[in-house]
Amino acid sequence: MDYDFIPQRVYEGSVGVVQTHHADFDSPLQLRGGGVLPAFRLAYETYGTLNADHSNAILICHALSGDAHVAGYHTDDPSEPPGWWDEAVGPGKMFDTGRYFVLCINVIGGCRGSTGPASESPDGQPWGLRFPVLTVYDMVQAQARLLDRLGIQRLYATAGGSMGGMQALEWAVSFPERVANVLFIASTPRSTPMNIALNETGRQAIYADPNWNGGHYYSGQAPDAGLSVARMIGHISYLSDPSFERKFGRRFQAGTEPRYAFETDFAVEGYLQHQGEKFVRRFDANTYLYITKALDYFDITEGYGSYEAAFAHVTSTQFLIVTFESDWLYPAGASEQLAAALRRVGREVEYHHVQADGGHDSFLVEVGSMLRIVGGYLA
Amino acid sequence: MDYDFIPQRVYEGSVGVVQTHHADFDSPLQLRGGGVLPAFRLAYETYGTLNADHSNAILICHALSGDAHVAGYHTDDPSEPPGWWDEAVGPGKMFDTGRYFVLCINVIGGCRGSTGPASESPDGQPWGLRFPVLTVYDMVQAQARLLDRLGIQRLYATAGGSMGGMQALEWAVSFPERVANVLFIASTPRSTPMNIALNETGRQAIYADPNWNGGHYYSGQAPDAGLSVARMIGHISYLSDPSFERKFGRRFQAGTEPRYAFETDFAVEGYLQHQGEKFVRRFDANTYLYITKALDYFDITEGYGSYEAAFAHVTSTQFLIVTFESDWLYPAGASEQLAAALRRVGREVEYHHVQADGGHDSFLVEVGSMLRIVGGYLA
Repeated sequence: MDYDFIPQRVYEGSVGVVQTHHADFDSPLQLRGGGVLPAFRLAYETYGTLNADHSNAILICHALSGDAHVAGYHTDDPSEPPGWWDEAVGPGKMFDTGRYFVLCINVIGGCRGSTGPASESPDGQPWGLRFPVLTVYDMVQAQARLLDRLGIQRLYATAGGSMGGMQALEWAVSFPERVANVLFIASTPRSTPMNIALNETGRQAIYADPNWNGGHYYSGQAPDAGLSVARMIGHISYLSDPSFERKFGRRFQAGTEPRYAFETDFAVEGYLQHQGEKFVRRFDANTYLYITKALDYFDITEGYGSYEAAFAHVTSTQFLIVTFESDWLYPAGASEQLAAALRRVGREVEYHHVQADGGHDSFLVEVGSMLRIVGGYLA
Repeated sequence: MDYDFIPQRVYEGSVGVVQTHHADFDSPLQLRGGGVLPAFRLAYETYGTLNADHSNAILICHALSGDAHVAGYHTDDPSEPPGWWDEAVGPGKMFDTGRYFVLCINVIGGCRGSTGPASESPDGQPWGLRFPVLTVYDMVQAQARLLDRLGIQRLYATAGGSMGGMQALEWAVSFPERVANVLFIASTPRSTPMNIALNETGRQAIYADPNWNGGHYYSGQAPDAGLSVARMIGHISYLSDPSFERKFGRRFQAGTEPRYAFETDFAVEGYLQHQGEKFVRRFDANTYLYITKALDYFDITEGYGSYEAAFAHVTSTQFLIVTFESDWLYPAGASEQLAAALRRVGREVEYHHVQADGGHDSFLVEVGSMLRIVGGYLA
């Protein structure tokens, strides 16, 4: 089965071939958890053109497994898949690069060009588990440094799905004067204990892999087996009962009869294994640990006690909040509570609940609804 | 935190101290998947008294991690916890041992007294992965052998939650003359692709543990780390968003502030780790593999094509079907479809959907509702 079908490349409506940029920062970043990053690098991409008064910038924030490469291609090789949200960014798309200057930054702690646990520490060795514990707040602080350097004082919008939505929301609380609009999509204002349970189980799968070796594996075998299991757990939480039924049902990998064999028999098993194997080729296990920890610690009311208190000082930002019916990872209820609280303190909120059965991944899959909602909001 | 609080032992309403029996079978068991068990042993317990015409027997079937020890105690040691469904079985309880002769049999493939992959094979070595692949059908065939030996031709009822419900239902299809009532509780008539995905991820966690060693570990270290992760995945699927919130919220293991440390910080993490560690002390990893495979293969319409066809010949059995609102592992919809199909072919069905937020585990937790529904049905 071809799980990675790549359609024929069409540059029309695409941002085309783009490159990843890098920016280095020498002054230390003080982290919420008490640690310090003495220096760091950020990888980022931009699409479209920054206007004269620098007022048309939209920061797209990526999710757990994402990176700075949102849209377009890095080469002319037709077998290369596009960026992770190519459907969303380009001329005429929901983030219209004909109007907006769109940028995306690989989070600190990441493994796709920005400084993370696999990066060289001041002693010349990889950080490994000596890397300081991160929060979503810290990711946003690092992003603000890059925006300073690019001369962008105020973003037209921060936007993101899943962990990207957490960053988009954190921007408003951390830098209320610097964000005109927050697009908070398929996300949660606080990780639930069930979210933490799923993340912790993935981390335990990594810890259980002897190749993980306390995080010291950069000169040897990586903990691929553990990271692959973690990714499988993640994938289950991104789908839903109906989307599993539609995609796989009880179909077999081969043939129409059960083989009653111990090998992989059901199509859904092969799919998950493939997702795990593919993931370990591009992702660092320690980054998985650090970013899931940041997810767990995310609670926008931290230090405030309530949504109302957290957003009392956020007086010039408007909010678009989008949830999906079958998203059991980040159920709509918490976003609805956030929307209600924002309205109670006088903020403008546009809230959409989309009837979609694709689970958490709906925000990537429901391109038509998203174009209508996000494109409409930004029009 | 004491996760395993054991209340003071009270023998009133309890079946008291009981013992596990064993029965050996020498004639081969032909399995649905094509394999053969040349001989096997079954561990079982009984509570109450078989009446003169042997018409008051109820077979309780256990779930994935269960065993024959449903109720009561094995010793007088007050620190010993009771059987896994002690609330359900005893004088005056929902399975009233004043009226019924209740028995429970550890499934074949199990590791709690019945023949399974850890048992000695004909060559004197443990079966390991040479043990034949099992189905729920095979578990029931083995149980029927024991009932023959005990002189029980017709069961008053088969009953079970989760995988126990699958066996209870399979009994009606395999032996329609031998079951008067099926009590199908928090179960599914077919494993969904999401169920299979969760099980396969647990299996991959076991495979990834080098101690698993292709199933050959009985003379060395067991794959505890992998089995523990599998159990953690299972536990998440047995709870629900609201029950996670109620039990743990975002509380910390210690103190009221985040430690921003890499160790376990949230209470829910400690709980899951504890569940994993406790499980590996009593459960065999290969059994986990075989039983989850049996779960995956379970589809009561297998070989029939529809519920109506599967139950066309089941003309003298009545059904009690119970589902729970927050059970996302085995959602109510499939049981509702089963109930509707059974009614279409003229079977008597009593169906209850219980509003409970405890997830799949509700069938063990909602003792009051269960006493009313199951006790009422059996009264």
